[in-house]
Amino acid sequence: MAGNTFGKIFKITTYGESHGPGMGVVIDGCPAGVTIDTAFIQAELKRRRPGQSNLVSQRNEQDDAIIQSGIFEGKSTGTPMHIFIPNQDQRSGDYSHLQDKYRPSHADYTYDLKYGIRDYRGGGRSSARETTARVAAGAIAKIILQGLGVNITAFVSQVGHVEMPLDKYSNVSLDDVESNAVRCPDSETAILIESLIKELQKDGDSIGGKISCIIKGCPQGWGEPVFDKLHADLGKAMLSINAVKGFEFGSGFSCITMKGSEHNDIFLQEKGSVKTRTNFSGGIQGGISNGMDINFNVAFKPVATIMQEQDTIDKEGNAVTLKSKGRHDPCVVPRAVPIVEAMAALVLVDHFLRARTNKI
Amino acid sequence: MAGNTFGKIFKITTYGESHGPGMGVVIDGCPAGVTIDTAFIQAELKRRRPGQSNLVSQRNEQDDAIIQSGIFEGKSTGTPMHIFIPNQDQRSGDYSHLQDKYRPSHADYTYDLKYGIRDYRGGGRSSARETTARVAAGAIAKIILQGLGVNITAFVSQVGHVEMPLDKYSNVSLDDVESNAVRCPDSETAILIESLIKELQKDGDSIGGKISCIIKGCPQGWGEPVFDKLHADLGKAMLSINAVKGFEFGSGFSCITMKGSEHNDIFLQEKGSVKTRTNFSGGIQGGISNGMDINFNVAFKPVATIMQEQDTIDKEGNAVTLKSKGRHDPCVVPRAVPIVEAMAALVLVDHFLRARTNKI
Amino acid sequence: MAGNTFGKIFKITTYGESHGPGMGVVIDGCPAGVTIDTAFIQAELKRRRPGQSNLVSQRNEQDDAIIQSGIFEGKSTGTPMHIFIPNQDQRSGDYSHLQDKYRPSHADYTYDLKYGIRDYRGGGRSSARETTARVAAGAIAKIILQGLGVNITAFVSQVGHVEMPLDKYSNVSLDDVESNAVRCPDSETAILIESLIKELQKDGDSIGGKISCIIKGCPQGWGEPVFDKLHADLGKAMLSINAVKGFEFGSGFSCITMKGSEHNDIFLQEKGSVKTRTNFSGGIQGGISNGMDINFNVAFKPVATIMQEQDTIDKEGNAVTLKSKGRHDPCVVPRAVPIVEAMAALVLVDHFLRARTNKI
Amino acid sequence: MAGNTFGKIFKITTYGESHGPGMGVVIDGCPAGVTIDTAFIQAELKRRRPGQSNLVSQRNEQDDAIIQSGIFEGKSTGTPMHIFIPNQDQRSGDYSHLQDKYRPSHADYTYDLKYGIRDYRGGGRSSARETTARVAAGAIAKIILQGLGVNITAFVSQVGHVEMPLDKYSNVSLDDVESNAVRCPDSETAILIESLIKELQKDGDSIGGKISCIIKGCPQGWGEPVFDKLHADLGKAMLSINAVKGFEFGSGFSCITMKGSEHNDIFLQEKGSVKTRTNFSGGIQGGISNGMDINFNVAFKPVATIMQEQDTIDKEGNAVTLKSKGRHDPCVVPRAVPIVEAMAALVLVDHFLRARTNKI
Repeated sequence: MAGNTFGKIFKITTYGESHGPGMGVVIDGCPAGVTIDTAFIQAELKRRRPGQSNLVSQRNEQDDAIIQSGIFEGKSTGTPMHIFIPNQDQRSGDYSHLQDKYRPSHADYTYDLKYGIRDYRGGGRSSARETTARVAAGAIAKIILQGLGVNITAFVSQVGHVEMPLDKYSNVSLDDVESNAVRCPDSETAILIESLIKELQKDGDSIGGKISCIIKGCPQGWGEPVFDKLHADLGKAMLSINAVKGFEFGSGFSCITMKGSEHNDIFLQEKGSVKTRTNFSGGIQGGISNGMDINFNVAFKPVATIMQEQDTIDKEGNAVTLKSKGRHDPCVVPRAVPIVEAMAALVLVDHFLRARTNKI
Repeated sequence: MAGNTFGKIFKITTYGESHGPGMGVVIDGCPAGVTIDTAFIQAELKRRRPGQSNLVSQRNEQDDAIIQSGIFEGKSTGTPMHIFIPNQDQRSGDYSHLQDKYRPSHADYTYDLKYGIRDYRGGGRSSARETTARVAAGAIAKIILQGLGVNITAFVSQVGHVEMPLDKYSNVSLDDVESNAVRCPDSETAILIESLIKELQKDGDSIGGKISCIIKGCPQGWGEPVFDKLHADLGKAMLSINAVKGFEFGSGFSCITMKGSEHNDIFLQEKGSVKTRTNFSGGIQGGISNGMDINFNVAFKPVATIMQEQDTIDKEGNAVTLKSKGRHDPCVVPRAVPIVEAMAALVLVDHFLRARTNKI
Repeated sequence: MAGNTFGKIFKITTYGESHGPGMGVVIDGCPAGVTIDTAFIQAELKRRRPGQSNLVSQRNEQDDAIIQSGIFEGKSTGTPMHIFIPNQDQRSGDYSHLQDKYRPSHADYTYDLKYGIRDYRGGGRSSARETTARVAAGAIAKIILQGLGVNITAFVSQVGHVEMPLDKYSNVSLDDVESNAVRCPDSETAILIESLIKELQKDGDSIGGKISCIIKGCPQGWGEPVFDKLHADLGKAMLSINAVKGFEFGSGFSCITMKGSEHNDIFLQEKGSVKTRTNFSGGIQGGISNGMDINFNVAFKPVATIMQEQDTIDKEGNAVTLKSKGRHDPCVVPRAVPIVEAMAALVLVDHFLRARTNKI
Repeated sequence: MAGNTFGKIFKITTYGESHGPGMGVVIDGCPAGVTIDTAFIQAELKRRRPGQSNLVSQRNEQDDAIIQSGIFEGKSTGTPMHIFIPNQDQRSGDYSHLQDKYRPSHADYTYDLKYGIRDYRGGGRSSARETTARVAAGAIAKIILQGLGVNITAFVSQVGHVEMPLDKYSNVSLDDVESNAVRCPDSETAILIESLIKELQKDGDSIGGKISCIIKGCPQGWGEPVFDKLHADLGKAMLSINAVKGFEFGSGFSCITMKGSEHNDIFLQEKGSVKTRTNFSGGIQGGISNGMDINFNVAFKPVATIMQEQDTIDKEGNAVTLKSKGRHDPCVVPRAVPIVEAMAALVLVDHFLRARTNKI
């Protein structure tokens, strides 16, 4: 019930604190016979790791994934995989001044209330460093999906008021996404975002952003019809990522102002396969994939750690001020792109396996 | 794995099809000793039922909740409660013309692909009539929350382009919400929404809408920190409701354009208790309630069933047209208000019970 | 967490009290496309029902199974099935004298302590009448297994000191089992058991017994290797039946005195398929079925309700005496045979579906 | 669904193969605030480790438990604990001759059929080395139970035909159990068992055994009444241990020959607290603990690895012979005592936390 497990058939359980020996994940339910490309897992972690550009935290972590079980002669065996990612550049001294102060919009206060005890170093368990474990597990899920022809591409579509034009959303490639430090596939928008982030960095401030995700090649029939609708599980997955404040799929919030006669996706037969004329459904109808592209957006708040003096209170309730030191991202979305993809992959693989049990 | 169960400790399992004998729910995990006010359950169902105004479906259902177990001498016994709500006005003949045609933006097509068999009458299991079971179970959850001083109020805040002003969101009361047929607590906005819906009804069209929800009195410490964050579970709950396309909490999607220096909620001590100056966190930090109001928005698409002729295909892939008959809502949000509240209540009670196991 | 659900993919949730309106079960996760023979469900319930002979409780229940969802045109649709079995001959007056007295070796005392409230009529939720719901759900599971060529046969192999000879265990047929009121397939033993039960009935006493179960045709590869070993799930299933005190499979407790050189089941190839020379493994190795017959034994205690005056205490702790009235079985095993089969079927179908996700 | 997780609130997930880098466990749901005595964890592992006497496997493992998360300043924080136990003396060469041969009564054959791939070195995942992870997690559970006054003592009560007299079962202490290499608390029986094991060791053979377990101080009200009865969960826990063939509690299989008038446990008030005159219920009534001692027996088969030449088949179905080399136990029960205790502790802590949610 403590909620460190995600998934029902392809299940991951993560553990680890920001300043402990490392982060880890156990994947239980990976089918046997999957060829595991460990270089790919490493590459995915590299996309998430700090220090990859001057726009992100300079914490120096190699994020080496050590697989300790569940693989034999390069293939999954059906037994649980454990992946461990050592912490190498934790500097606990950086945090001692925060031990008794509640950082605004962080989890310090709520953890203290909930548990009565808290590893305050670097946010402890509430650190986004927990997502290394998700990315490692998500890489395994991606390998399975690639074998099924399912392709997940997330990208930064907005930071602050800088938005990527909607007509650039189609045909986004991984190469485009990885072509710049902010992971916005439209190079013009990317330049604007980069300069915006740098400006805020200079001010010791941070900024929010949006990640969009497009899933191509998802077979029909994934997702369960009532509580475990495919989009409900995607939504939960995204909302479980640190700093996320909103999720929408297909038409999303724009559906509010639409009429049924505009919003309905008309079915048609095209070269022998069923399509819809529009895709306001976002590839999911009645909670089940219909074979069209799945697409969704995720809103990330500005990073709570800023390099400015802020008012707050301490454990005793006294008014105090604090100013963060340490190594932080002024904008979380560039590094969150692989996390969004990883969580989407985990949801899809789980429903791929669940769908195997739907018919006699 | 078929996903008809929601919750981990306070667990509900629903069943039933639109045109079968009735809808039902088993609640397993309701603590013993709760005084069950059956009139309250009935009142909640009445808020959801069709036929309550001329703006909604005229299907004539009394939605009588029959409790068949788990209660003794007016109190919950700790054993599972079963609540059955008979279907009384199903008219299967209305649907025979749809048997082989896929209604646009409905679940007909995906169900057929997933299962190879489908009860097509009134949408079968994909009908929003399934939510009667959720409202009945949610009423039990609400009773428990009322005993804890937790109050959930949902309301219609937007339909089409008609928006309720943000400054009217505070101090919304249940009486205000129930004072008009569209469940918008601001009477001026309500009048505009009502006339908008009537206009669309005349055209045989439908329109989207937004429901906002405010939870007052939620104790600190509910929610689990990693995957089962309180807002992630609320998000999943909302996204599992028919027609929902988006969920946001606290600052929501507006966080994208905000700076950390604006968005951070500064802690302060007020009359001996900890508050935050602003509440962009929406009452939840690190996935755990912090004692401030919890608030979120839910986007509902326009109802897919419209009284206009539409193009589609049949089971064999032939292009056909269809025009719906039957009894449908031109806008789903007025009746969805109690469903949003019910799902929120179910999430909260589950986390209330989970929080009991956090400390030794 | 309240434990009224069994299974992970093929999941059943039961509810109902002995003297409420009825017993029920929701089956979630039944694959679509199973032809449901309702007469078979009814026949299974008839094997369990009271009043079927003069050796069992004379409570007069028809145990009509009413299916209210999840079936369309005779086939399962993949949506949850609800089966309701009305209580028709509850006589609550029979129990009022027991309201404040704790019946020895019943659940009265522990329920009161656990919940602080208890439906005392006929044992409430702790009544073995709850197993009607299991038998109904188990019948669906049996239908699926029959389609796969899996055959489950349970029978009474011992009552008191009367034991069926071991050499009669092979080739037990359902017809043999059903050929007499005590469900012992060996007619000579059956006669002795019958007269033993009648004797105890005369004395107002009760007696324990053993049920053996043989499963033929179980495919290889069912069962998970660590915690959810096939025999561990069978064991839990059996131990969850009222009155069960022990479970053993294969060599069972007799393995204690055996040497490895005797106990090891030697593999051999026979007509192109792999067999073992002996079957002390009981068809399960490393928690996974190996294709040989699965067999196990279940020990049932003597029914706690006896028609003799007994000492006990009341709620206040005062020493009192009680003498049961009402309609009870002097020996539970004849009616428990279909319950054992039902629970075994539920375990097997669950693992059949789980095994579908083991390999890529 | 792959079954490497045990427990519902206090949940453990184990991983690791006999000849991989090590064995591990993630404990999710340990309440915050438990003082973790790491020396105690180590001591428990030492009781299970090979090489502790000349009666057991001479594999040389220190079994050092490395805790990598979930503890801060000596206390549990409510976040998941990961414990890693490195494998240090794996000698994979020992097993290469077994790569293609199916060892009788091992899991080689069923793993191959289920997964199509298998880490054959030392049994891979099916090795009893997996139980190190259980013992480490069980130590945490024991610490919690000790704080509640619950005491679990398991011991060897029979090996082959050598049985410990029943009248010695009461007042068994941990010191008695640990006073000899076979963990039989009665020194006379211990000597006989020891010489029996040595004799079989000389013959290259193995022998079965029985472990009995007594739990004192268990509070009333633990256990759920229907499927998750306390004894059903204990039974599953025990049956999930390698080599276990049977489980019985209270009167166990001996109940078969008893009358109700003998078997019923008469309630009485003794010094202000409720007791039963006898305890055939084994401390559990209706699936719920009643405050009396909980007791159960577990049957372990003779170890399948014997140092004698045996017939078997290879992967292609050819008849072959094999003779084991390597380092094995002639009798598993002495080292299984701490495993039985660990699994019992895990079940009890889970139900302790579950019981917190039973009443409002």
